[in-house]
Amino acid sequence: MSAARTLHLNTNVTGTGRHPAGWRTLDNPKSIIDLAFFTKIAQTAERGKLDAVFLSDALALRGHAHGPAQSLEPTVLLTALAAVTRHVGLIGTASTTFNDPYNLARRFASVDHLSAGRVAWNAVTTYDTDAAGNFGGGAALDKTARYERAAEFVDVVQKLWDSWEDDALIADRTSGRYADPTRVHAIAHDGPHFQVRGPLNLPRSPQGRPVLVQAGGSEAGVALAARHADAVFTAQTTFDGAQAFYRDIKARAVGHGRNPDHFLILPGLYPVIGGTLGEARQRKAEMDALLDRSAELAKFAGALGVTSDALQLDAPLPYDLLDSGTRSDVSSGFIRSTVLLARSENLTVRELLDRNPGAHRMLVGTPETIADDIERWFAGRAADGFNLNADVFPSGLAAFVDHVVPLLQRKGIFRREYEGTTLREHYGLPRPTSRYAGRADVTDTATSGALASHVAI
Amino acid sequence: MSAARTLHLNTNVTGTGRHPAGWRTLDNPKSIIDLAFFTKIAQTAERGKLDAVFLSDALALRGHAHGPAQSLEPTVLLTALAAVTRHVGLIGTASTTFNDPYNLARRFASVDHLSAGRVAWNAVTTYDTDAAGNFGGGAALDKTARYERAAEFVDVVQKLWDSWEDDALIADRTSGRYADPTRVHAIAHDGPHFQVRGPLNLPRSPQGRPVLVQAGGSEAGVALAARHADAVFTAQTTFDGAQAFYRDIKARAVGHGRNPDHFLILPGLYPVIGGTLGEARQRKAEMDALLDRSAELAKFAGALGVTSDALQLDAPLPYDLLDSGTRSDVSSGFIRSTVLLARSENLTVRELLDRNPGAHRMLVGTPETIADDIERWFAGRAADGFNLNADVFPSGLAAFVDHVVPLLQRKGIFRREYEGTTLREHYGLPRPTSRYAGRADVTDTATSGALASHVAI
Repeated sequence: MSAARTLHLNTNVTGTGRHPAGWRTLDNPKSIIDLAFFTKIAQTAERGKLDAVFLSDALALRGHAHGPAQSLEPTVLLTALAAVTRHVGLIGTASTTFNDPYNLARRFASVDHLSAGRVAWNAVTTYDTDAAGNFGGGAALDKTARYERAAEFVDVVQKLWDSWEDDALIADRTSGRYADPTRVHAIAHDGPHFQVRGPLNLPRSPQGRPVLVQAGGSEAGVALAARHADAVFTAQTTFDGAQAFYRDIKARAVGHGRNPDHFLILPGLYPVIGGTLGEARQRKAEMDALLDRSAELAKFAGALGVTSDALQLDAPLPYDLLDSGTRSDVSSGFIRSTVLLARSENLTVRELLDRNPGAHRMLVGTPETIADDIERWFAGRAADGFNLNADVFPSGLAAFVDHVVPLLQRKGIFRREYEGTTLREHYGLPRPTSRYAGRADVTDTATSGALASHVAI
Repeated sequence: MSAARTLHLNTNVTGTGRHPAGWRTLDNPKSIIDLAFFTKIAQTAERGKLDAVFLSDALALRGHAHGPAQSLEPTVLLTALAAVTRHVGLIGTASTTFNDPYNLARRFASVDHLSAGRVAWNAVTTYDTDAAGNFGGGAALDKTARYERAAEFVDVVQKLWDSWEDDALIADRTSGRYADPTRVHAIAHDGPHFQVRGPLNLPRSPQGRPVLVQAGGSEAGVALAARHADAVFTAQTTFDGAQAFYRDIKARAVGHGRNPDHFLILPGLYPVIGGTLGEARQRKAEMDALLDRSAELAKFAGALGVTSDALQLDAPLPYDLLDSGTRSDVSSGFIRSTVLLARSENLTVRELLDRNPGAHRMLVGTPETIADDIERWFAGRAADGFNLNADVFPSGLAAFVDHVVPLLQRKGIFRREYEGTTLREHYGLPRPTSRYAGRADVTDTATSGALASHVAI
């Protein structure tokens, strides 16, 4: 951790890349289930000294007629990527609505052990009725309930990560003492959503706690992030808006007694890179020509909560439909950011679709213009770094690593070599002490059936 | 799959091995969180052409003052082991009581993809109040409810594994068709315990379905295994008893319309190997000398559901205490098998503890006596193979691989080379066709929010 402020860069992997038709340009269009494809992404990120590979996720299948989405379970895929890399961080998305905290805490701590301290959990609440249909058939919890559950879920997970102190595993061959029961703690959590006794059945992981990331820009998400997260992933489309978001959320963190330097604001960025602006535009145009426009329009209408025929490609958005009536929180954030972008630049539906609406800021340009833009946002404290989306992997990422990263290094804002080994070190975050350190409670549960567990095989 | 009947051998990994003091002989006594340790185990198993590495599991910490137990989450650890091996199968234990079927189906299917078809799920119901305390604080479900849930859980998981037909992923760059919606099926499961719409968000895995294993010898477990499992792991301590179990459970499978050759009976075996019988005994005695007898006695008493002072090392079991009164099903299987062993050989508590009570049959001997015993059980149809426990890894396994495996190969009952690449092929199991193949229902859910899922990052 050097004293100077350093840019942080993740590569954000969703499907085979952000461009919906990108898979049609791949040698192996079935890459979504091909370990070699993800290996190439992770090794390219590591070659570029990026902080981390970040896997998005969803818990339902959608749109499979038209293109790929994240399919392999993130903690499993990250473990495979840990085996083929040595430095790059490994960030996985997992839902607080459709998991149990004990299993999730253990899974991320396991990856942290196996990656020697490189893992992060991106906690999402999953506002998705398709996913809910895979977990009980009911509707997703309403937003307030989801975030209440999420806050308690994160609390339980972090307590479990702290339940073994760092020096609790003794393993002294001479005395036969294996763990120190005074340094292994029940968490005895008893809350509205979870009752979890603990401790975790795994010694504390290399980072103490895996890095905690929060994604999503709703008020409830921002509040959760400001209190708990080590980094927040956010969709910001304008410099001024991003500066305001940055100031606000850092101030909130300070209000919770936190050091704002230990809380990274990482907006999404979607660069499309060419040697000249014309080449960059050409790259995008070639992929756009492969788009199924009617399928894209139907997906877009679905996300906005309107029918396809309410949208016309060469007309503005139907603002009256979008502004009126009650709206589930499912799509409100998406609608808000889409309307903001459309109004601010007076865009037609076709132009909006070209701009990757509602998701991450697209920059079509040369390495120089993209590096300058990144520097401007970073220096202007609109961002501490970025989640980089590639139009298609691995080529979109390789272009960034080979042509933009060297410019950022020359500007003196990005590392030339990894200085640490853990993701906490890449991010400049301190390693937390267990909250239970020094507590005297003894929680050994040795006598209640260890042999029975053997019989269970 | 050759026509001749072939022995099947897994190595069963619990902690650092079966002997409670084995960790005190290791160079790195903290091996339980050391990937190099597990890598060595998996590579040794593969060198011996074993069918699989099998990870036990528990969902609570117990006995940590005295020794290690499985800590790293099995699907995560198996993924790491897939990266350092090419042939050996990878079997992970996971609970039907403390998981959701959608997440579990996806996780095992993901490992199956990343290992090119080498994974199996060992489904257990987890009769463990310590674990229950980590998942809601209540008592574990009673046995009937647990097995009803388990049967439905397995059904849901297998439906999800079938929800993509083999040829559903088209990924045709020219037409832009990615998946064939007529070959991707909602499962629309609506049962007493689970309502799961499906489909899985992952194309069908290399084995079609990961291999399904069931462990545990209770009536409910046996019934579940005979109907659904590809292999059953069982604790059998006598040849006659094992033959009877084998005959009974294979007959049950036939009664369900199954081919008995596609249902493997694999008792546990715990060999302690020396160049001479004296050396084998010496190896065991040296580890026994490192045991904490009072801790072992306390664990044993806990597993039997009695207090420590009810047991005396040099007296028989207190049969009256064990036979009388109501007994939770938590420990009844353990008690039954322990009492059977103690009565059949008139053993004291100390002698019982020496025999690894209630768990797996211990054979202290030379490579020749152990290979002969294995051949006898295999030829006599008391077993289709074994789950091999090592006293301590990796040396206990290496002794088996280097000295027993060549004898089994010379007897013509064990493979000299892997003949296939998947665990199904090692086990001689057919690859199942999706139950939905040919069904005409169309389940594309493309329009309901794919863009919203991008916003969620």
